[in-house]
Amino acid sequence: MSDLHFQRIGLVLHPQRPHARGLAEAVAQYLQQTGREPVLLSADMLDRADQVAGWDLALTFGGDGLMLRVARYAAPMGVPLLGINLGRVGFLTEIQPEEWLEQLHRVWEGRYWVERRLMLEAHWIREGERLGPFHALNDIVVGRMGMGRVVRVRVEIDGHYFTTYIGDGLIVATPTGSTAYALAAGGPILPPELKNIVLVPIAPHLSLDRAVVLDEGVRLALTVHTEGKAVLTIDGAGDNPMGEGDQVEIAAAPFSACFLRLRDRSYFYRLLATRLRRMVADENDATV
Amino acid sequence: MSDLHFQRIGLVLHPQRPHARGLAEAVAQYLQQTGREPVLLSADMLDRADQVAGWDLALTFGGDGLMLRVARYAAPMGVPLLGINLGRVGFLTEIQPEEWLEQLHRVWEGRYWVERRLMLEAHWIREGERLGPFHALNDIVVGRMGMGRVVRVRVEIDGHYFTTYIGDGLIVATPTGSTAYALAAGGPILPPELKNIVLVPIAPHLSLDRAVVLDEGVRLALTVHTEGKAVLTIDGAGDNPMGEGDQVEIAAAPFSACFLRLRDRSYFYRLLATRLRRMVADENDATV
Amino acid sequence: MSDLHFQRIGLVLHPQRPHARGLAEAVAQYLQQTGREPVLLSADMLDRADQVAGWDLALTFGGDGLMLRVARYAAPMGVPLLGINLGRVGFLTEIQPEEWLEQLHRVWEGRYWVERRLMLEAHWIREGERLGPFHALNDIVVGRMGMGRVVRVRVEIDGHYFTTYIGDGLIVATPTGSTAYALAAGGPILPPELKNIVLVPIAPHLSLDRAVVLDEGVRLALTVHTEGKAVLTIDGAGDNPMGEGDQVEIAAAPFSACFLRLRDRSYFYRLLATRLRRMVADENDATV
Amino acid sequence: MSDLHFQRIGLVLHPQRPHARGLAEAVAQYLQQTGREPVLLSADMLDRADQVAGWDLALTFGGDGLMLRVARYAAPMGVPLLGINLGRVGFLTEIQPEEWLEQLHRVWEGRYWVERRLMLEAHWIREGERLGPFHALNDIVVGRMGMGRVVRVRVEIDGHYFTTYIGDGLIVATPTGSTAYALAAGGPILPPELKNIVLVPIAPHLSLDRAVVLDEGVRLALTVHTEGKAVLTIDGAGDNPMGEGDQVEIAAAPFSACFLRLRDRSYFYRLLATRLRRMVADENDATV
Repeated sequence: MSDLHFQRIGLVLHPQRPHARGLAEAVAQYLQQTGREPVLLSADMLDRADQVAGWDLALTFGGDGLMLRVARYAAPMGVPLLGINLGRVGFLTEIQPEEWLEQLHRVWEGRYWVERRLMLEAHWIREGERLGPFHALNDIVVGRMGMGRVVRVRVEIDGHYFTTYIGDGLIVATPTGSTAYALAAGGPILPPELKNIVLVPIAPHLSLDRAVVLDEGVRLALTVHTEGKAVLTIDGAGDNPMGEGDQVEIAAAPFSACFLRLRDRSYFYRLLATRLRRMVADENDATV
Repeated sequence: MSDLHFQRIGLVLHPQRPHARGLAEAVAQYLQQTGREPVLLSADMLDRADQVAGWDLALTFGGDGLMLRVARYAAPMGVPLLGINLGRVGFLTEIQPEEWLEQLHRVWEGRYWVERRLMLEAHWIREGERLGPFHALNDIVVGRMGMGRVVRVRVEIDGHYFTTYIGDGLIVATPTGSTAYALAAGGPILPPELKNIVLVPIAPHLSLDRAVVLDEGVRLALTVHTEGKAVLTIDGAGDNPMGEGDQVEIAAAPFSACFLRLRDRSYFYRLLATRLRRMVADENDATV
Repeated sequence: MSDLHFQRIGLVLHPQRPHARGLAEAVAQYLQQTGREPVLLSADMLDRADQVAGWDLALTFGGDGLMLRVARYAAPMGVPLLGINLGRVGFLTEIQPEEWLEQLHRVWEGRYWVERRLMLEAHWIREGERLGPFHALNDIVVGRMGMGRVVRVRVEIDGHYFTTYIGDGLIVATPTGSTAYALAAGGPILPPELKNIVLVPIAPHLSLDRAVVLDEGVRLALTVHTEGKAVLTIDGAGDNPMGEGDQVEIAAAPFSACFLRLRDRSYFYRLLATRLRRMVADENDATV
Repeated sequence: MSDLHFQRIGLVLHPQRPHARGLAEAVAQYLQQTGREPVLLSADMLDRADQVAGWDLALTFGGDGLMLRVARYAAPMGVPLLGINLGRVGFLTEIQPEEWLEQLHRVWEGRYWVERRLMLEAHWIREGERLGPFHALNDIVVGRMGMGRVVRVRVEIDGHYFTTYIGDGLIVATPTGSTAYALAAGGPILPPELKNIVLVPIAPHLSLDRAVVLDEGVRLALTVHTEGKAVLTIDGAGDNPMGEGDQVEIAAAPFSACFLRLRDRSYFYRLLATRLRRMVADENDATV
């Protein structure tokens, strides 16, 4: 059966979603029966990229949050992802649970396309030490811890001083992240296939208050200054306390996160319109 | 029948809404039968305040736009309004068409409350001539005509220079208008009973880009400067061409627009939440 | 000397500002010589309203932050404030250090006016216990601690459900606070004499994203829901950890903060224009 | 002298700027003396691309607005631009008038780089007729004429329905245009070398209110619906009245606008920070 394109398949399941395990086991059994090698893994056990080494595909059983987490390990190893959705409709998952068999058949037949999404790579310079690399599919945030004091984030682009954001913090987002926290903070929307990095300030206080869209080739250096506490957050995970003067270097990662897609290429715009629509009003600004 | 509180009742109907005339005639017949004096009027015939003189109530058959238009004539004469809604759900109309009989009974029984909404009064100083007063329930807008050139609107508050807005124009809105054009331009929402005047710039270009909420007692003087064409618009009606240096003086009107309300006093917040709600998303900024 | 209008005068100084103590001591000496009773106090010693009891005036030596802090104790006791500015130009301080003698003379001569600013009063309901009252001159914020998880803030207005804000949190601000954190979060500007309460969401995520301006008479009830950590912050001070389901009740305080003003009543608009101005650009959206 | 890289040089001057003609004539004389062929032209005489045919360089004497206008003709013919600034500091001009001789020497020596900026190409489908192509360096706007009625702009991306914007109109901008009208309407900032197309709604009314950044490869189709009047505006020039149902097709132009640059490649960020800076405030949201 070594001629199968997707031979070794990781099944990563959300540890708290009630139906995740049952469904994953059913899929694993099916894979085995068709001569493939399933590897079942609870997401809370996944913490090293080498755990996914050799996988031809990562099937996820959960929501977008799970896919974010798995991408961090799968993307560096070149393992594509396919999400079976056990949450609400999201931007990353692709398959509804009841259609898994039919959709996997489409995959075996090659009736899919691969969406490559930009990821960010960060290094954290802290008391002379250079930690990292850290990888993010949504965003890297330098923000304040609590409400007491503003954070100042000094930004250099390609070695040149750009500006200093003052406020709750700064979001450095990918196109994938443009529909997550960056959207809430007022940023623009980018379809997932774009290769841009977006800067979005959070509650900017008399400083540059506009999002800036940059080329994927830029190298960013963020330096944090605050009389309070600042934290570094990567894809929403962890509040890593930063010290005064700590730096974060951010650039596009040398690899992309690859998602198998079965819907047509315009799915993103349809989803977007659905999720952001408001009730259309009658025009009470109009006259008789 | 002179003991009736609402004796002489104007019925103003939207000239284009298909069912307006039929319904208004049915209501007029009922009013007559119960000893009242109905006065039927198509809104396009209404252009002087004295037409509504002596009315005890103005019943409107249309949408919010119709009520805006009728308020301009009814409010100065102290005539309260009650809107039978033939449009989409709006903020001004009160009664659905099928419930008119039942709701009018409630009115005769005094089971209503009166909502007083701030109106604006404007004078237009144009080549030495002082035109007006003009009255608005939603807003007074000094804007540009077409897309070619920005408009500069110099604003004085109580005789003191405040700032000069540069861009597409400036909206001076009432709380009623805060959910209309001012909302689209980024302004805050004010419940209708507030007595504030709101300044909201339209597409401000490197000038003050924030809404300012003022006390009802202020006196505003707007002066327009542009190399293109500017227009003055009152409650969305008419694009009155303004000349370079024209002024508009705006203050709260000496009267309010009065609306009979049958729903409880929290209706505004419910309506607002309904009209502005978006789909609530799953949190794809969250981790596993 | 009991005929002096301002007899007993508290001098509250910023503990870290270098020149605060020297200046305060000079002013204290002068007050004593003119038959008044100065009471010198470092702000870090001030933590109970009874410390200011009997004062006729609180003179502050610091910036706006110091005045915020002193107001919390002075306002409930009806003690007016007058700020000698040792920071950058702010909205609350009134006197530059070099002009203190001349300006105090104006005060003795009664050539001042009193600006009354709305304050908020909050109670915190936590596991059945009702803590408070807490008082704020700027704002009361229910926000998230760190970046991990959104906070949901359910809002009732006068006992009626209004909406649920989802995101980084919710600011409940006074007009004074409208130029502080609420401004950074996108709120409108209100001159200090207004009596309104403003709701401004912080980075709202697919929920109501507009500021709402309310009447001073409203009673708000905020309930917090989050899978992460939430904090309650009052005038920027303290990150008080909130539990799931904790409530905060907010209304206008029964007293105002009173500031002696020597500048004319339009000072606020001048300050505002100065602080928010941007460079005026040439119009590169214009044609030849 | 045929070995000169820049042999035939157009000098396009702003017809109203007072010093433009004198300076342009001095430069023309110098060019002639150094064996080049200057062609002097007033911008109001420039209305066909063939007028610039054969030019090796277009030198402009005016501001950014003039360069926008010249680019429309120069870019299709592959003629690079170099702007001598007679206006305020802008994003497009490169040389200050007093340094023209020194800077032209740098150009002859090849000490410059070429900045290629994306342009848009539009066709206007009107009663079955397909007008165009029209070219824009900043933006193409479908907007309303005057203030009376909203415009609805239905947008298709690559043949798929995306959304319908309701409000004052829709800006389709290049990165160059991102610092012009699109910025005023709330859009993000893109450095000039990016190859993206940005959609920014103007005063959106209960419809999608966020900017969308697209790939340069997209093909847009805009259809306009309004009960009022709509206009099509290209780089701020002309208010071309559109009829109900008119369409505008927009895509990246097959050519770029080329600008000679003598400053280093980070000039854009420096300019941006300068033009958008605000006064940095003291933190009056902070405590003692």
